Amino acid sequence: MKRVVVAPGDGIGPEVIPPALDVLKFFHPDWEYTPVYLGYECWKRTGDALSDKTLETLRKADLILFGAITTPPDPKYHSVVLRIRKELDLYANLRPVFGEGFDILIVRENTEGLYSGIEWKEKDRACTLRVVSEAGSRRIAKFASACANRRRRHLTIGNKANVMKSDAYFLEICMEEAEKTGISIDKKYIDALVLDVLQHPSRYDVIVTTNIFGDILSDAAAFLEGGLGMLPSANIGRHQALFEPVHGSAPDITGKGIANPIAAIRCVSLLLKYVGERPLAIEVERAIQKTIAAGIKTPDLGGTATTDEVGREILKNL
Amino acid sequence: MKRVVVAPGDGIGPEVIPPALDVLKFFHPDWEYTPVYLGYECWKRTGDALSDKTLETLRKADLILFGAITTPPDPKYHSVVLRIRKELDLYANLRPVFGEGFDILIVRENTEGLYSGIEWKEKDRACTLRVVSEAGSRRIAKFASACANRRRRHLTIGNKANVMKSDAYFLEICMEEAEKTGISIDKKYIDALVLDVLQHPSRYDVIVTTNIFGDILSDAAAFLEGGLGMLPSANIGRHQALFEPVHGSAPDITGKGIANPIAAIRCVSLLLKYVGERPLAIEVERAIQKTIAAGIKTPDLGGTATTDEVGREILKNL
Ligand SMILES: CC(C)[C@H](C(=O)O)[C@@H](O)C(=O)O
Ligand SMILES: CC(C)[C@H](C(=O)O)[C@@H](O)C(=O)O
Repeated sequence: MKRVVVAPGDGIGPEVIPPALDVLKFFHPDWEYTPVYLGYECWKRTGDALSDKTLETLRKADLILFGAITTPPDPKYHSVVLRIRKELDLYANLRPVFGEGFDILIVRENTEGLYSGIEWKEKDRACTLRVVSEAGSRRIAKFASACANRRRRHLTIGNKANVMKSDAYFLEICMEEAEKTGISIDKKYIDALVLDVLQHPSRYDVIVTTNIFGDILSDAAAFLEGGLGMLPSANIGRHQALFEPVHGSAPDITGKGIANPIAAIRCVSLLLKYVGERPLAIEVERAIQKTIAAGIKTPDLGGTATTDEVGREILKNL
Repeated sequence: MKRVVVAPGDGIGPEVIPPALDVLKFFHPDWEYTPVYLGYECWKRTGDALSDKTLETLRKADLILFGAITTPPDPKYHSVVLRIRKELDLYANLRPVFGEGFDILIVRENTEGLYSGIEWKEKDRACTLRVVSEAGSRRIAKFASACANRRRRHLTIGNKANVMKSDAYFLEICMEEAEKTGISIDKKYIDALVLDVLQHPSRYDVIVTTNIFGDILSDAAAFLEGGLGMLPSANIGRHQALFEPVHGSAPDITGKGIANPIAAIRCVSLLLKYVGERPLAIEVERAIQKTIAAGIKTPDLGGTATTDEVGREILKNL
């Protein structure tokens, strides 16, 4: 039995999460599902984009299915997602990118680096502290090495150790941890890595890197899949995980019933892998492929189907 | 009259710089040309990758034509290029990327941000200070706005102000400076920007961003031109500028006489633009295009010509 907290959020979040939830409930009708309310709309109505009570509910979850957030204009509520990552210590951000001839897993350190929040303003300059801790580096290195060990046993460490001592430190720790598992290891400067992933994606298996480099690299890699629209992501902590489509709240198409639910449904596939139900995860992916092949597609993929129609078809194909 | 210092460096540097120099001398036989010796080979022979005397010579130059450097294994000499940028305060790094239907100029702040060199190690973590100064931001913003003003009058400011206050500061100063010129302004988070440049390059004119974001963005954008092989770059200071092909020293093909000299020759084109001789710069680019169209190409472009043959043909086409 798992406790699943469902946070549809704003925009198309409440449109794409229900079909994803249907898929999850198809496999696990008996799990406990708790909806929570957060984000921009929540902020407009309650003055709080993420209340303490909601945070408590999230803390108690085993699994969180997250839609999308429209950033409230109030800088105090700048990033609900960042706050959740930090509060729940969701230290590993996973972004799988795969297509014809490539299958890459980007493992991004998700709690420190330039996201330390240690910042200050001096008279004539603004500073942000980039923090690379031993513990933070070691746990992400272990995590990524373990992922590689279960896949094609190759790890690439994205870094800028030629410029920053903090990355020389990150690299050293990653090498140490990766060597313990006996996988093959490659290190690459992040600028060259971004280009090489675009040019030769089939050469990569798992890539581990620091927070903001992972942020940029995963958007660049999304180019290989035709953009962010269909990509899921996972934010993994010690005892729980949050799954979130990479696309945003898409206010331009909100309310039209035409949002593509595939990224959200792929989140369910990631979630199933996370709980160890790999065969079910593969079944979800196969049902998605079959639906696309049958031409049941939302307008972003050149089809005329609605969110519901795509969702229902995927469910039928399970 | 200009003082040109020529630093071929290592690897294919000494192979591609001579044909580039031929092109420059074709237009300006009367300028003063001074060769200097630096880099890995220099370090092996003299124990110093960049001597004080060489640095003095570079300081007195109006223009520097730079080849490539092989990084010496000695960490003390880690980056000759970074040291020159810092010592000569070459604050603007320009990377033009253009092709069928797009013509983008990336203007990268070249002296601060994560390249501050302010770093320390604590017991269990390593820190690098990201510094965004008012003066540094203002001069790069002015520079980029002036570039946009001479081109298609559009500036995109790449930032991560949703995460870092130092980038909110950078963004604010860039907006201020850009607004003074009346060009149209766009701001974009760096992750989304990298993806959008790949997907819709024609939407961009000038892009300004901080040091490491520019580093990554320009390599990603190189994908649009098929890689780094043919791209030139400029590092601009208050009174002088250094021009450098983006490709490295390429030890694998060194000594074979088959290195593509086009990136180096395009550096001359950038140099000519920098000194205000735009028509000559365009002539160089045209001679390059004509040479490629005639099939006189090095192996990396699928041809069989040598470095010298390509160089001579470009010279003939001027
Ligand atoms: C919205 C933003 C703060 C976030 C990040 O930078 O991590 C986003 O880009 C992401 O990748 O999840
Ligand atoms: C070699 C390296 C230090 C350098 C940088 O990071 O600036 C390079 O990537 C560049 O873009 O010129």
